[in-house]
Amino acid sequence: MTGRDGGAALAPIEGAPVVVLVRPQLADNIGACARAMANGGLFALRLVAPRDGWPQDKAWRNASGADRILDAATVHGTLAEAVADLHHVFATCPRPRHIIKPVLTARGAAAELRAVGARGLRAGVLFGPERAGLDNDDMAAADALVRFPLNPAFMSLNLAQAVMVVAYEWWLADDGTAPRRLMTNETRVATKGEVENFLTHLVAELDGCGFLDNLPKRPGMVRNIRHFFQRGEVTEQELRTLHGVVTELARGRRGQ
Amino acid sequence: MTGRDGGAALAPIEGAPVVVLVRPQLADNIGACARAMANGGLFALRLVAPRDGWPQDKAWRNASGADRILDAATVHGTLAEAVADLHHVFATCPRPRHIIKPVLTARGAAAELRAVGARGLRAGVLFGPERAGLDNDDMAAADALVRFPLNPAFMSLNLAQAVMVVAYEWWLADDGTAPRRLMTNETRVATKGEVENFLTHLVAELDGCGFLDNLPKRPGMVRNIRHFFQRGEVTEQELRTLHGVVTELARGRRGQ
Repeated sequence: MTGRDGGAALAPIEGAPVVVLVRPQLADNIGACARAMANGGLFALRLVAPRDGWPQDKAWRNASGADRILDAATVHGTLAEAVADLHHVFATCPRPRHIIKPVLTARGAAAELRAVGARGLRAGVLFGPERAGLDNDDMAAADALVRFPLNPAFMSLNLAQAVMVVAYEWWLADDGTAPRRLMTNETRVATKGEVENFLTHLVAELDGCGFLDNLPKRPGMVRNIRHFFQRGEVTEQELRTLHGVVTELARGRRGQ
Repeated sequence: MTGRDGGAALAPIEGAPVVVLVRPQLADNIGACARAMANGGLFALRLVAPRDGWPQDKAWRNASGADRILDAATVHGTLAEAVADLHHVFATCPRPRHIIKPVLTARGAAAELRAVGARGLRAGVLFGPERAGLDNDDMAAADALVRFPLNPAFMSLNLAQAVMVVAYEWWLADDGTAPRRLMTNETRVATKGEVENFLTHLVAELDGCGFLDNLPKRPGMVRNIRHFFQRGEVTEQELRTLHGVVTELARGRRGQ
Protein backbone atom coordinates (compact mmCIF):
# COMPACT_ATOMS: atom_id res chain seq x y z
CA MET A 1 0.00 0.00 0.00
CA THR A 2 2.94 2.29 0.50
CA GLY A 3 6.72 2.06 0.69
CA ARG A 4 8.82 1.20 3.67
CA ASP A 5 8.69 3.16 6.85
CA GLY A 6 12.06 1.84 7.90
CA GLY A 7 10.87 0.26 11.08
CA ALA A 8 13.63 2.00 13.01
CA ALA A 9 11.07 3.27 15.51
CA LEU A 10 9.69 -0.21 16.24
CA ALA A 11 9.83 -1.06 19.92
CA PRO A 12 7.91 -3.19 22.40
CA ILE A 13 4.72 -1.63 23.77
CA GLU A 14 4.01 -2.43 27.40
CA GLY A 15 1.20 -4.92 27.88
CA ALA A 16 1.19 -6.09 24.25
CA PRO A 17 0.76 -9.83 23.73
CA VAL A 18 3.44 -12.17 22.44
CA VAL A 19 2.88 -13.78 19.04
CA VAL A 20 3.75 -17.50 19.04
CA LEU A 21 4.06 -19.14 15.63
CA VAL A 22 3.77 -22.88 16.18
CA ARG A 23 5.77 -25.01 13.71
CA PRO A 24 5.69 -22.35 10.96
CA GLN A 25 6.65 -23.73 7.57
CA LEU A 26 7.66 -20.84 5.31
CA ALA A 27 10.17 -18.16 6.25
CA ASP A 28 8.36 -15.81 3.82
CA ASN A 29 5.32 -16.10 6.02
CA ILE A 30 7.30 -15.47 9.19
CA GLY A 31 8.51 -12.22 7.61
CA ALA A 32 4.98 -11.27 6.56
CA CYS A 33 3.80 -11.99 10.11
CA ALA A 34 6.47 -9.66 11.52
CA ARG A 35 5.27 -6.93 9.15
CA ALA A 36 1.66 -7.43 10.25
CA MET A 37 2.73 -7.39 13.91
CA ALA A 38 4.49 -4.08 13.31
CA ASN A 39 1.33 -2.64 11.73
CA GLY A 40 -0.62 -3.45 14.85
CA GLY A 41 1.99 -2.49 17.44
CA LEU A 42 3.02 -6.03 18.43
CA PHE A 43 6.71 -6.77 18.87
CA ALA A 44 7.51 -10.01 20.71
CA LEU A 45 7.71 -12.99 18.36
CA ARG A 46 8.36 -16.60 19.41
CA LEU A 47 8.87 -19.45 16.98
CA VAL A 48 8.19 -23.03 18.01
CA ALA A 49 10.18 -25.53 15.94
CA PRO A 50 10.21 -23.62 12.63
CA ARG A 51 10.32 -26.26 9.91
CA ASP A 52 13.26 -24.85 7.95
CA GLY A 53 15.31 -23.68 10.93
CA TRP A 54 16.08 -20.15 12.00
CA PRO A 55 17.26 -17.54 11.06
CA GLN A 56 16.27 -17.48 7.37
CA ASP A 57 17.12 -14.55 5.10
CA LYS A 58 13.79 -14.87 3.35
CA ALA A 59 11.98 -13.75 6.48
CA TRP A 60 13.88 -10.48 6.61
CA ARG A 61 13.38 -9.92 2.88
CA ASN A 62 9.62 -10.29 3.29
CA ALA A 63 9.24 -8.14 6.41
CA SER A 64 9.33 -4.73 4.68
CA GLY A 65 11.58 -3.30 7.33
CA ALA A 66 10.11 -4.90 10.44
CA ASP A 67 13.61 -6.24 11.03
CA ARG A 68 13.72 -5.44 14.70
CA ILE A 69 10.89 -7.87 15.36
CA LEU A 70 12.73 -10.66 13.56
CA ASP A 71 16.05 -9.76 15.20
CA ALA A 72 14.44 -10.11 18.62
CA ALA A 73 12.47 -13.29 17.83
CA THR A 74 13.21 -16.32 19.99
CA VAL A 75 13.15 -19.99 18.98
CA HIS A 76 11.72 -22.73 21.20
CA GLY A 77 11.78 -26.49 20.91
CA THR A 78 8.29 -27.01 22.28
CA LEU A 79 5.11 -25.04 22.74
CA ALA A 80 5.26 -25.68 26.49
CA GLU A 81 8.66 -23.98 26.62
CA ALA A 82 7.45 -21.07 24.50
CA VAL A 83 4.53 -20.26 26.80
CA ALA A 84 6.06 -21.17 30.16
CA ASP A 85 6.37 -17.57 31.37
CA LEU A 86 2.98 -16.41 30.07
CA HIS A 87 -0.14 -15.98 32.22
CA HIS A 88 -2.79 -16.24 29.51
CA VAL A 89 -2.68 -18.06 26.20
CA PHE A 90 -5.13 -17.65 23.33
CA ALA A 91 -5.08 -20.05 20.40
CA THR A 92 -6.31 -19.04 16.95
CA CYS A 93 -8.25 -21.86 15.45
CA PRO A 94 -10.57 -21.81 12.46
CA ARG A 95 -12.66 -24.90 13.06
CA PRO A 96 -12.28 -26.42 16.53
CA ARG A 97 -14.02 -29.74 17.08
CA HIS A 98 -14.73 -31.80 20.15
CA ILE A 99 -13.13 -29.28 22.46
CA ILE A 100 -14.70 -27.69 25.49
CA LYS A 101 -13.18 -24.25 25.64
CA PRO A 102 -14.19 -20.60 25.60
CA VAL A 103 -14.24 -19.25 22.05
CA LEU A 104 -13.63 -15.58 21.39
CA THR A 105 -13.96 -13.44 18.30
CA ALA A 106 -10.79 -11.54 17.38
CA ARG A 107 -12.44 -8.42 18.74
CA GLY A 108 -13.41 -10.15 21.95
CA ALA A 109 -9.88 -11.51 22.30
CA ALA A 110 -8.40 -8.06 21.71
CA ALA A 111 -10.45 -6.62 24.55
CA GLU A 112 -9.34 -9.44 26.86
CA LEU A 113 -5.70 -9.09 25.77
CA ARG A 114 -5.86 -5.39 26.63
CA ALA A 115 -7.40 -6.18 30.01
CA VAL A 116 -4.79 -8.84 30.78
CA GLY A 117 -1.97 -6.52 29.74
CA ALA A 118 -3.37 -3.69 31.87
CA ARG A 119 -3.14 -5.98 34.90
CA GLY A 120 0.56 -6.45 34.25
CA LEU A 121 0.14 -10.05 33.10
CA ARG A 122 1.78 -11.51 30.02
CA ALA A 123 -0.43 -12.94 27.29
CA GLY A 124 0.37 -14.82 24.11
CA VAL A 125 -1.53 -15.69 20.96
CA LEU A 126 -0.79 -18.99 19.20
CA PHE A 127 -0.94 -19.38 15.41
CA GLY A 128 -0.64 -22.82 13.87
CA PRO A 129 1.29 -24.12 10.87
CA GLU A 130 0.14 -22.92 7.45
CA ARG A 131 -1.29 -26.18 6.24
CA ALA A 132 -2.87 -27.87 9.22
CA GLY A 133 -3.32 -25.23 11.89
CA LEU A 134 -2.90 -25.95 15.58
CA ASP A 135 -3.42 -29.55 16.66
CA ASN A 136 -5.48 -30.70 19.62
CA ASP A 137 -2.52 -30.77 22.00
CA ASP A 138 -1.59 -27.21 21.06
CA MET A 139 -5.12 -26.07 21.78
CA ALA A 140 -5.15 -27.84 25.13
CA ALA A 141 -2.37 -25.47 26.21
CA ALA A 142 -4.59 -22.44 25.70
CA ASP A 143 -7.07 -20.73 28.02
CA ALA A 144 -9.34 -19.83 25.15
CA LEU A 145 -9.67 -20.16 21.40
CA VAL A 146 -9.92 -17.27 18.97
CA ARG A 147 -12.08 -17.78 15.93
CA PHE A 148 -12.58 -15.04 13.36
CA PRO A 149 -16.11 -14.54 12.14
CA LEU A 150 -15.42 -14.70 8.40
CA ASN A 151 -17.12 -15.95 5.26
CA PRO A 152 -18.01 -19.61 5.95
CA ALA A 153 -17.80 -20.24 2.20
CA PHE A 154 -14.06 -19.53 2.29
CA MET A 155 -12.24 -19.98 5.60
CA SER A 156 -8.72 -20.49 4.25
CA LEU A 157 -6.85 -17.68 5.97
CA ASN A 158 -3.23 -16.87 5.22
CA LEU A 159 -1.01 -17.04 8.32
CA ALA A 160 0.06 -13.39 8.08
CA GLN A 161 -3.57 -12.37 7.52
CA ALA A 162 -4.55 -14.12 10.74
CA VAL A 163 -1.76 -12.28 12.58
CA MET A 164 -2.91 -9.05 10.91
CA VAL A 165 -6.47 -9.43 12.14
CA VAL A 166 -5.33 -10.04 15.71
CA ALA A 167 -2.77 -7.20 15.63
CA TYR A 168 -5.27 -4.84 14.01
CA GLU A 169 -7.95 -5.60 16.58
CA TRP A 170 -5.43 -5.29 19.41
CA TRP A 171 -4.38 -1.85 18.16
CA LEU A 172 -7.97 -0.70 17.66
CA ALA A 173 -9.03 -1.86 21.12
CA ASP A 174 -7.17 1.18 22.43
CA ASP A 175 -7.75 3.57 19.55
CA GLY A 176 -10.14 6.49 19.73
CA THR A 177 -10.14 7.67 16.11
CA ALA A 178 -13.56 8.98 15.08
CA PRO A 179 -15.18 6.66 12.51
CA ARG A 180 -15.77 9.69 10.25
CA ARG A 181 -14.25 13.11 10.30
CA LEU A 182 -13.53 15.84 7.77
CA MET A 183 -9.85 16.31 7.07
CA THR A 184 -9.32 20.01 6.50
CA ASN A 185 -5.54 20.47 6.78
CA GLU A 186 -4.67 24.21 6.78
CA THR A 187 -8.28 25.33 6.62
CA ARG A 188 -11.25 24.64 8.90
CA VAL A 189 -14.92 23.77 8.70
CA ALA A 190 -16.97 26.86 7.81
CA THR A 191 -19.43 28.37 10.25
CA LYS A 192 -23.09 28.60 9.34
CA GLY A 193 -22.64 32.40 9.07
CA GLU A 194 -19.96 31.91 6.42
CA VAL A 195 -22.17 29.49 4.49
CA GLU A 196 -25.04 31.99 4.73
CA ASN A 197 -22.81 34.75 3.46
CA PHE A 198 -21.91 32.67 0.41
CA LEU A 199 -25.54 31.73 -0.25
CA THR A 200 -26.52 35.41 -0.13
CA HIS A 201 -23.80 36.17 -2.66
CA LEU A 202 -24.89 33.29 -4.90
CA VAL A 203 -28.57 34.17 -4.82
CA ALA A 204 -27.84 37.84 -5.55
CA GLU A 205 -25.84 36.87 -8.64
CA LEU A 206 -28.53 34.40 -9.73
CA ASP A 207 -31.09 37.18 -9.38
CA GLY A 208 -28.78 39.45 -11.34
CA CYS A 209 -28.45 37.03 -14.27
CA GLY A 210 -32.15 36.22 -14.37
CA PHE A 211 -31.87 32.57 -13.28
CA LEU A 212 -34.54 33.15 -10.60
CA ASP A 213 -36.93 35.32 -12.65
CA ASN A 214 -39.79 32.80 -12.39
CA LEU A 215 -41.24 34.34 -9.22
CA PRO A 216 -43.68 31.53 -8.26
CA LYS A 217 -40.84 29.00 -8.51
CA ARG A 218 -38.18 31.24 -6.95
CA PRO A 219 -38.64 30.21 -3.27
CA GLY A 220 -38.42 26.50 -4.10
CA MET A 221 -35.40 26.96 -6.34
CA VAL A 222 -33.58 29.00 -3.69
CA ARG A 223 -34.43 26.37 -1.10
CA ASN A 224 -33.07 23.55 -3.27
CA ILE A 225 -29.81 25.42 -3.76
CA ARG A 226 -29.59 26.05 -0.01
CA HIS A 227 -30.20 22.34 0.66
CA PHE A 228 -27.33 21.36 -1.60
CA PHE A 229 -24.78 23.66 -0.01
CA GLN A 230 -25.87 22.69 3.50
CA ARG A 231 -25.66 18.94 2.90
CA GLY A 232 -22.21 18.27 4.27
CA GLU A 233 -19.41 20.11 5.91
CA VAL A 234 -17.83 22.76 3.73
CA THR A 235 -14.56 24.43 4.62
CA GLU A 236 -13.75 28.10 4.83
CA GLN A 237 -11.24 27.67 1.99
CA GLU A 238 -13.81 25.96 -0.23
CA LEU A 239 -16.25 28.81 0.42
CA ARG A 240 -13.65 31.33 -0.73
CA THR A 241 -13.17 29.30 -3.90
CA LEU A 242 -16.93 29.14 -4.41
CA HIS A 243 -17.24 32.93 -3.94
CA GLY A 244 -14.63 33.30 -6.67
CA VAL A 245 -16.39 30.84 -8.95
CA VAL A 246 -19.68 32.75 -8.64
CA THR A 247 -18.05 36.14 -9.09
CA GLU A 248 -16.12 35.06 -12.18
CA LEU A 249 -19.06 33.26 -13.78
CA ALA A 250 -21.22 36.36 -13.25
CA ARG A 251 -18.52 38.68 -14.61
CA GLY A 252 -18.11 36.54 -17.75
CA ARG A 253 -21.82 36.67 -18.37
CA ARG A 254 -22.05 40.45 -17.81
CA GLY A 255 -19.38 41.73 -20.14
CA GLN A 256 -16.27 40.33 -21.72
CA MET B 1 -3.75 -21.01 8.78
CA THR B 2 -5.50 -23.92 7.22
CA GLY B 3 -5.75 -25.65 3.86
CA ARG B 4 -7.93 -24.81 0.93
CA ASP B 5 -11.66 -24.61 1.18
CA GLY B 6 -12.02 -25.00 -2.52
CA GLY B 7 -13.78 -21.74 -3.08
CA ALA B 8 -16.45 -23.55 -5.10
CA ALA B 9 -19.13 -21.92 -2.96
CA LEU B 10 -17.87 -18.39 -3.62
CA ALA B 11 -20.55 -16.15 -5.05
CA PRO B 12 -21.46 -12.47 -5.03
CA ILE B 13 -23.32 -11.25 -1.94
CA GLU B 14 -25.94 -8.60 -2.62
CA GLY B 15 -24.91 -5.15 -1.52
CA ALA B 16 -21.21 -6.00 -1.17
CA PRO B 17 -18.78 -3.37 -2.42
CA VAL B 18 -16.55 -3.72 -5.46
CA VAL B 19 -12.79 -3.86 -4.87
CA VAL B 20 -10.87 -1.69 -7.34
CA LEU B 21 -7.12 -2.28 -7.52
CA VAL B 22 -5.62 0.78 -9.15
CA ARG B 23 -2.48 0.07 -11.22
CA PRO B 24 -1.54 -3.05 -9.23
CA GLN B 25 2.04 -4.16 -9.85
CA LEU B 26 2.38 -7.80 -8.80
CA ALA B 27 0.06 -10.58 -9.91
CA ASP B 28 0.96 -12.43 -6.67
CA ASN B 29 -0.63 -9.59 -4.77
CA ILE B 30 -3.74 -9.61 -6.94
CA GLY B 31 -4.16 -13.29 -6.07
CA ALA B 32 -3.62 -12.59 -2.37
CA CYS B 33 -6.21 -9.80 -2.59
CA ALA B 34 -8.75 -12.20 -4.10
CA ARG B 35 -8.13 -14.61 -1.23
CA ALA B 36 -8.64 -11.83 1.33
CA MET B 37 -11.81 -10.72 -0.46
CA ALA B 38 -13.13 -14.28 -0.27
CA ASN B 39 -12.42 -14.37 3.47
CA GLY B 40 -14.55 -11.29 3.97
CA GLY B 41 -17.35 -12.15 1.57
CA LEU B 42 -16.39 -9.72 -1.22
CA PHE B 43 -16.51 -10.95 -4.81
CA ALA B 44 -16.41 -8.20 -7.46
CA LEU B 45 -12.83 -7.30 -8.42
CA ARG B 46 -11.86 -4.60 -10.93
CA LEU B 47 -8.31 -3.98 -12.08
CA VAL B 48 -7.27 -0.59 -13.43
CA ALA B 49 -4.28 -0.85 -15.77
CA PRO B 50 -2.48 -3.76 -14.08
CA ARG B 51 1.23 -3.21 -14.72
CA ASP B 52 2.03 -6.66 -16.08
CA GLY B 53 -1.20 -7.21 -18.01
CA TRP B 54 -4.02 -9.61 -17.28
CA PRO B 55 -4.64 -12.51 -16.83
CA GLN B 56 -1.52 -13.77 -15.04
CA ASP B 57 -1.15 -17.36 -13.81
CA LYS B 58 0.64 -16.18 -10.69
CA ALA B 59 -2.54 -14.56 -9.44
CA TRP B 60 -4.46 -17.83 -9.55
CA ARG B 61 -1.55 -19.69 -7.93
CA ASN B 62 -1.56 -17.26 -5.01
CA ALA B 63 -5.32 -17.13 -4.46
CA SER B 64 -5.65 -20.41 -2.51
CA GLY B 65 -8.75 -21.38 -4.42
CA ALA B 66 -10.48 -18.01 -4.70
CA ASP B 67 -10.43 -18.63 -8.46
CA ARG B 68 -13.97 -17.55 -9.10
CA ILE B 69 -13.14 -14.02 -8.00
CA LEU B 70 -10.21 -13.85 -10.40
CA ASP B 71 -12.21 -15.49 -13.20
CA ALA B 72 -14.85 -12.78 -12.86
CA ALA B 73 -12.42 -9.85 -12.47
CA THR B 74 -12.68 -7.08 -15.07
CA VAL B 75 -9.89 -4.91 -16.46
CA HIS B 76 -10.27 -1.18 -17.07
CA GLY B 77 -8.06 1.33 -18.81
CA THR B 78 -8.78 4.19 -16.46
CA LEU B 79 -10.10 4.66 -12.96
CA ALA B 80 -12.93 6.80 -14.30
CA GLU B 81 -14.08 3.88 -16.44
CA ALA B 82 -13.79 1.45 -13.53
CA VAL B 83 -16.02 3.50 -11.24
CA ALA B 84 -18.46 4.92 -13.79
CA ASP B 85 -21.41 2.76 -12.67
CA LEU B 86 -20.78 3.12 -8.92
CA HIS B 87 -22.70 5.46 -6.63
CA HIS B 88 -20.15 5.76 -3.84
CA VAL B 89 -16.38 5.46 -3.94
CA PHE B 90 -14.07 5.11 -0.97
CA ALA B 91 -10.31 5.42 -1.39
CA THR B 92 -7.88 3.73 0.99
CA CYS B 93 -5.03 6.06 1.67
CA PRO B 94 -2.42 5.84 4.40
CA ARG B 95 -1.21 9.41 4.57
CA PRO B 96 -3.36 11.92 2.70
CA ARG B 97 -2.01 15.45 2.48
CA HIS B 98 -3.50 18.72 1.37
CA ILE B 99 -6.85 17.16 0.64
CA ILE B 100 -10.20 18.28 1.98
CA LYS B 101 -12.21 15.12 2.24
CA PRO B 102 -14.08 13.04 4.78
CA VAL B 103 -11.78 10.45 6.36
CA LEU B 104 -13.17 7.21 7.72
CA THR B 105 -11.66 4.44 9.75
CA ALA B 106 -12.01 0.99 8.17
CA ARG B 107 -14.76 0.25 10.69
CA GLY B 108 -16.53 3.52 9.91
CA ALA B 109 -16.24 2.80 6.19
CA ALA B 110 -17.63 -0.72 6.69
CA ALA B 111 -20.71 0.67 8.39
CA GLU B 112 -21.24 3.17 5.56
CA LEU B 113 -20.64 0.49 2.92
CA ARG B 114 -23.32 -1.66 4.55
CA ALA B 115 -25.70 1.30 4.64
CA VAL B 116 -25.05 2.17 1.00
CA GLY B 117 -25.53 -1.46 -0.05
CA ALA B 118 -28.75 -1.73 1.93
CA ARG B 119 -30.12 1.19 -0.10
CA GLY B 120 -29.47 -0.75 -3.30
CA LEU B 121 -26.58 1.51 -4.33
CA ARG B 122 -23.25 0.23 -5.65
CA ALA B 123 -20.10 1.15 -3.75
CA GLY B 124 -16.45 0.57 -4.51
CA VAL B 125 -13.23 0.72 -2.50
CA LEU B 126 -10.03 1.83 -4.21
CA PHE B 127 -6.61 0.43 -3.34
CA GLY B 128 -3.50 1.99 -4.83
CA PRO B 129 -0.35 0.47 -6.33
CA GLU B 130 1.96 -1.35 -3.93
CA ARG B 131 4.79 1.15 -3.95
CA ALA B 132 3.21 4.57 -4.13
CA GLY B 133 -0.44 4.17 -3.18
CA LEU B 134 -3.20 6.20 -4.79
CA ASP B 135 -2.20 9.53 -6.30
CA ASN B 136 -4.02 12.82 -5.82
CA ASP B 137 -6.13 12.43 -8.97
CA ASP B 138 -7.23 8.96 -7.85
CA MET B 139 -8.31 10.36 -4.51
CA ALA B 140 -10.21 13.21 -6.13
CA ALA B 141 -12.49 10.55 -7.66
CA ALA B 142 -13.57 9.33 -4.22
CA ASP B 143 -16.34 10.52 -1.92
CA ALA B 144 -14.29 9.73 1.15
CA LEU B 145 -10.92 8.39 2.21
CA VAL B 146 -10.37 5.33 4.37
CA ARG B 147 -7.44 5.42 6.71
CA PHE B 148 -6.68 2.54 9.06
CA PRO B 149 -5.76 3.49 12.59
CA LEU B 150 -2.52 1.49 12.89
CA ASN B 151 0.85 1.79 14.54
CA PRO B 152 2.24 5.18 13.41
CA ALA B 153 5.75 3.76 13.86
CA PHE B 154 5.13 1.32 10.99
CA MET B 155 2.52 2.24 8.42
CA SER B 156 3.77 0.10 5.54
CA LEU B 157 0.76 -2.07 4.82
CA ASN B 158 0.82 -4.89 2.32
CA LEU B 159 -1.82 -4.51 -0.40
CA ALA B 160 -3.59 -7.77 0.44
CA GLN B 161 -3.49 -6.84 4.14
CA ALA B 162 -5.28 -3.59 3.34
CA VAL B 163 -7.91 -5.49 1.38
CA MET B 164 -8.15 -7.96 4.27
CA VAL B 165 -8.86 -5.24 6.81
CA VAL B 166 -11.62 -3.74 4.66
CA ALA B 167 -13.15 -7.13 3.83
CA TYR B 168 -12.91 -8.26 7.47
CA GLU B 169 -14.60 -5.10 8.74
CA TRP B 170 -17.26 -5.32 6.06
CA TRP B 171 -18.06 -8.89 7.08
CA LEU B 172 -18.09 -8.05 10.79
CA ALA B 173 -20.37 -5.06 10.27
CA ASP B 174 -23.18 -7.56 9.80
CA ASP B 175 -21.98 -10.30 12.14
CA GLY B 176 -23.56 -11.03 15.48
CA THR B 177 -21.12 -13.57 16.93
CA ALA B 178 -20.81 -13.19 20.70
CA PRO B 179 -17.35 -11.90 21.64
CA ARG B 180 -16.99 -14.78 24.12
CA ARG B 181 -18.89 -18.00 24.43
CA LEU B 182 -18.21 -21.50 25.73
CA MET B 183 -18.02 -24.13 23.03
CA THR B 184 -19.45 -27.32 24.48
CA ASN B 185 -20.11 -29.54 21.43
CA GLU B 186 -22.05 -32.65 22.48
CA THR B 187 -22.33 -31.62 26.12
CA ARG B 188 -23.79 -28.52 27.80
CA VAL B 189 -23.00 -26.07 30.56
CA ALA B 190 -23.71 -27.63 33.95
CA THR B 191 -26.45 -26.30 36.19
CA LYS B 192 -25.62 -24.98 39.63
CA GLY B 193 -27.34 -28.03 41.09
CA GLU B 194 -24.96 -30.33 39.21
CA VAL B 195 -21.98 -28.34 40.41
CA GLU B 196 -23.32 -28.50 43.97
CA ASN B 197 -23.77 -32.25 43.66
CA PHE B 198 -20.13 -32.63 42.64
CA LEU B 199 -18.92 -30.37 45.45
CA THR B 200 -20.87 -32.44 47.97
CA HIS B 201 -19.22 -35.58 46.60
CA LEU B 202 -15.77 -33.97 46.71
CA VAL B 203 -16.10 -32.64 50.25
CA ALA B 204 -17.44 -35.99 51.48
CA GLU B 205 -14.39 -37.77 50.07
CA LEU B 206 -12.05 -35.12 51.46
CA ASP B 207 -13.67 -35.61 54.88
CA GLY B 208 -13.26 -39.35 54.42
CA CYS B 209 -9.53 -39.15 53.72
CA GLY B 210 -8.83 -36.69 56.49
CA PHE B 211 -7.90 -33.72 54.28
CA LEU B 212 -10.36 -31.50 56.20
CA ASP B 213 -9.60 -32.76 59.73
CA ASN B 214 -8.40 -29.34 60.93
CA LEU B 215 -11.83 -28.22 62.16
CA PRO B 216 -11.09 -24.49 62.70
CA LYS B 217 -9.71 -24.26 59.16
CA ARG B 218 -12.30 -26.54 57.55
CA PRO B 219 -14.91 -23.86 56.60
CA GLY B 220 -12.31 -21.67 54.85
CA MET B 221 -10.78 -24.64 53.03
CA VAL B 222 -14.16 -25.82 51.83
CA ARG B 223 -15.00 -22.30 50.71
CA ASN B 224 -11.76 -21.98 48.74
CA ILE B 225 -12.45 -25.23 46.94
CA ARG B 226 -15.98 -24.07 46.16
CA HIS B 227 -14.63 -20.79 44.80
CA PHE B 228 -12.32 -22.62 42.41
CA PHE B 229 -14.99 -24.86 40.94
CA GLN B 230 -17.46 -21.99 40.58
CA ARG B 231 -15.04 -19.69 38.76
CA GLY B 232 -16.01 -20.36 35.21
CA GLU B 233 -18.49 -22.38 33.28
CA VAL B 234 -18.08 -26.11 33.71
CA THR B 235 -19.86 -28.62 31.51
CA GLU B 236 -21.97 -31.57 32.48
CA GLN B 237 -19.43 -33.89 30.81
CA GLU B 238 -16.53 -32.35 32.73
CA LEU B 239 -18.43 -32.82 36.00
CA ARG B 240 -18.88 -36.50 35.24
CA THR B 241 -15.14 -36.77 34.62
CA LEU B 242 -14.43 -34.94 37.87
CA HIS B 243 -16.77 -37.25 39.80
CA GLY B 244 -14.76 -40.15 38.38
CA VAL B 245 -11.45 -38.53 39.28
CA VAL B 246 -12.53 -38.03 42.88
CA THR B 247 -13.99 -41.52 43.22
CA GLU B 248 -10.90 -43.18 41.80
CA LEU B 249 -8.45 -41.13 43.84
CA ALA B 250 -10.40 -41.97 46.99
CA ARG B 251 -10.57 -45.65 46.11
CA GLY B 252 -6.80 -45.77 45.55
CA ARG B 253 -6.19 -44.24 48.95
CA ARG B 254 -8.54 -46.61 50.74
CA GLY B 255 -7.20 -49.87 49.55
CA GLN B 256 -6.25 -50.55 45.94
